Amino acid sequence: MSELKLRRLDVGATDFDRELNALLDWESVSDTRVQETVAHVIHRIRTEGDAALQDFSRQFDQFEVDSASELVLDKAAIQAGFDRLPTEQQEALQTAAARVEEYHSHQVGESWQYTQADGTVLGQQVTPMDRVGIYVPGGTAPLASSVIMNATPARVAGVSEVVMATPAPKGQVSDFVLGAAHVAGIDRVFLMGGAQAVAALAYGTETVPSVDKIVGPGNIFVATAKKQVFGKVGIDMIAGPSEILVVCDGKTDPDWIALDLFSQAEHDTDAQSILISQDGAFLDAVSESIARLLPEMERADVIRQSLADRGALIQVDRLEDAQALINRIAPEHLELSIDDPESWLPAIRHAGAIFLGRHTPEALGDYCAGPNHVLPTSGTARFFSPLGVYDFQKRSSLIGVSPEGAKTLGAVASILARGEQLTAHARSAEKRIDE
Amino acid sequence: MSELKLRRLDVGATDFDRELNALLDWESVSDTRVQETVAHVIHRIRTEGDAALQDFSRQFDQFEVDSASELVLDKAAIQAGFDRLPTEQQEALQTAAARVEEYHSHQVGESWQYTQADGTVLGQQVTPMDRVGIYVPGGTAPLASSVIMNATPARVAGVSEVVMATPAPKGQVSDFVLGAAHVAGIDRVFLMGGAQAVAALAYGTETVPSVDKIVGPGNIFVATAKKQVFGKVGIDMIAGPSEILVVCDGKTDPDWIALDLFSQAEHDTDAQSILISQDGAFLDAVSESIARLLPEMERADVIRQSLADRGALIQVDRLEDAQALINRIAPEHLELSIDDPESWLPAIRHAGAIFLGRHTPEALGDYCAGPNHVLPTSGTARFFSPLGVYDFQKRSSLIGVSPEGAKTLGAVASILARGEQLTAHARSAEKRIDE
Repeated sequence: MSELKLRRLDVGATDFDRELNALLDWESVSDTRVQETVAHVIHRIRTEGDAALQDFSRQFDQFEVDSASELVLDKAAIQAGFDRLPTEQQEALQTAAARVEEYHSHQVGESWQYTQADGTVLGQQVTPMDRVGIYVPGGTAPLASSVIMNATPARVAGVSEVVMATPAPKGQVSDFVLGAAHVAGIDRVFLMGGAQAVAALAYGTETVPSVDKIVGPGNIFVATAKKQVFGKVGIDMIAGPSEILVVCDGKTDPDWIALDLFSQAEHDTDAQSILISQDGAFLDAVSESIARLLPEMERADVIRQSLADRGALIQVDRLEDAQALINRIAPEHLELSIDDPESWLPAIRHAGAIFLGRHTPEALGDYCAGPNHVLPTSGTARFFSPLGVYDFQKRSSLIGVSPEGAKTLGAVASILARGEQLTAHARSAEKRIDE
Repeated sequence: MSELKLRRLDVGATDFDRELNALLDWESVSDTRVQETVAHVIHRIRTEGDAALQDFSRQFDQFEVDSASELVLDKAAIQAGFDRLPTEQQEALQTAAARVEEYHSHQVGESWQYTQADGTVLGQQVTPMDRVGIYVPGGTAPLASSVIMNATPARVAGVSEVVMATPAPKGQVSDFVLGAAHVAGIDRVFLMGGAQAVAALAYGTETVPSVDKIVGPGNIFVATAKKQVFGKVGIDMIAGPSEILVVCDGKTDPDWIALDLFSQAEHDTDAQSILISQDGAFLDAVSESIARLLPEMERADVIRQSLADRGALIQVDRLEDAQALINRIAPEHLELSIDDPESWLPAIRHAGAIFLGRHTPEALGDYCAGPNHVLPTSGTARFFSPLGVYDFQKRSSLIGVSPEGAKTLGAVASILARGEQLTAHARSAEKRIDE
């Protein structure tokens, strides 16, 4: 095993800005071949429905069914998966789901309206979407937490039906994932994956109902399909590789910090783990912890490459200098392993999730603290938010103008509409003045 | 002038479903040539900056400048445009801006947090974006109202800098648009349009600062550019042609309803105007009003083609049957020209904006009632909301786990992480238990 050389940056160095930009640089490559493949898959699902879906399942998942109805698991089948789990996992899933539900209940938007002096009523009516689809990738690691994190805000929003799509290679689906679907209140599971699953959820087939929004992680085909069906349905944000920025004053056990960096790096080799401290000796100590603990890790190879390619230890002059770097990086996960971390909050403008204090490793937030683990990546915390109940509610403006109000507002609208040369608008408004 | 034959549908007819689907069918065509042109423009702006911007301004806008700094209007230049307007327009713009600001102040999201029994703190911090760009199309009709509707929610959200991009063919820009920019509090106007303007706002040039989000309407090049830069910056929703669904019980003056349908149809020939009533004689009366009033309209040709191609009068058996059609159509604008329209609200699940009562024509909402006129089109009210303050704020999850909480949550996270085969996550959580 080669030794890990973890990048070390110093804000005082003359080329720090350039080095930091190079470190953060990430752009997903748009591949014409992938886009064309996905467009073809979507076209076939739209025109051939279930027949195409069965074809793709046979072709990509080695899963052959006589009827598309065999691709559907109902609530009983989902619960059966939960029932097969060890009690320990059942209870952990239930605890996580309950905590995530409680947290998200604080996000429910309410309708509001107010009445003006002339009797005009203005407001906004908030309603849930009708039906939502959660995509859950297959692959080696069964993403049970992803089911809970994506489905719970939809259910809390009051979405009538939450369905899930997940590939079932050779017909196999993980009981751990089904157990999560059970505790998260998924109504139906469709055993389908890839671009065909996204297409079926967006446009519907004889068996799969069309949904209003599709959320959840996936490979490049899934991500490309989501982008292509955007507008026909809603989608969640576009995710890049996951990242963590840890700020530590040097008073946390360096082994803890090393493990926190590992927990990010083990996701995949593109994941990014960065530590900032004002204490050079502490950065050395964390380096030593990393070297010592890395060989013990089950996913040591992934962690090593991720840290070597995209990791960094950054030394600042004063700890507070980290605040400017936080806002510049706009990290997905920000861990403030410092004294009185809440005092930093007013200075933090951009971060997906902020982990406060030495006892809050990112892993707790990933699974069960309550907040969502679907977070904006690659600096998009500048404009994206964590997945939440607000992503599954939508608003309708309410405008009830009184006869008196119509006279005042009609006069203003008439002037502006004529200024824009939209005279039918003007006449429509003026009609209510003349009355 | 050819006579207008307005489509008449009856929910009782056997082919009603098919006819309604054909009427509503709309899909924007994705044109490879446009996509390639836009990709090229974005690439040039990214690599050549101001020089490319000046090139494109000369090429597309017949606007030649020696330095890119001539493309910038500061606050004084913006106000000069306002000062040149007639008093009537100045006052109308100010009234509209004040009303829109007041309405949107009700949408400001607040940070929140709560403390659990074990001392664990959970919450969400709400912050504004740093800088936002508003795109305002050129063309014949100066879209002053669009400036107010796009900029105001950003300003109310607390965005530090709101800039605007608008093409200036031969260097000309409308004082009406500048006046709107003045009352809406725009900080800087960049005289640039098309895909190059979107690219400059997304990536920045020597002169144009990069923004966090780009909103506002535009032609196919602008819309395609926004879709291509999505992810690098946020964008608003993808807009199709504008539409209105009027529901009337037959007791409103048919001339009023005819003008309301015209006000939608005059936008462009793809716009859609639909009227539903249980009263066949009333539908006849509206047809007569349309025939009589149409020749008086300045934009009669656009209105005639829009109504002929995409308009319809739909007769239902009972007025309440319109509710199911509303939810199926999910209209951008819904006008309830009926008695006690508020009693219908609980039954309406999907609509961009709901105009309540006979004195609330859409035109009032378009300009000055208060709510936003940027609304979800083509049935996307199923999952999109009106543009609002929430589009310019973003959230950061807050998680502060107490030492006691870390023991409980660590145990749960450990089980789930090991179930997902993410053992570094498990170890990071377990470390806080062992303490």
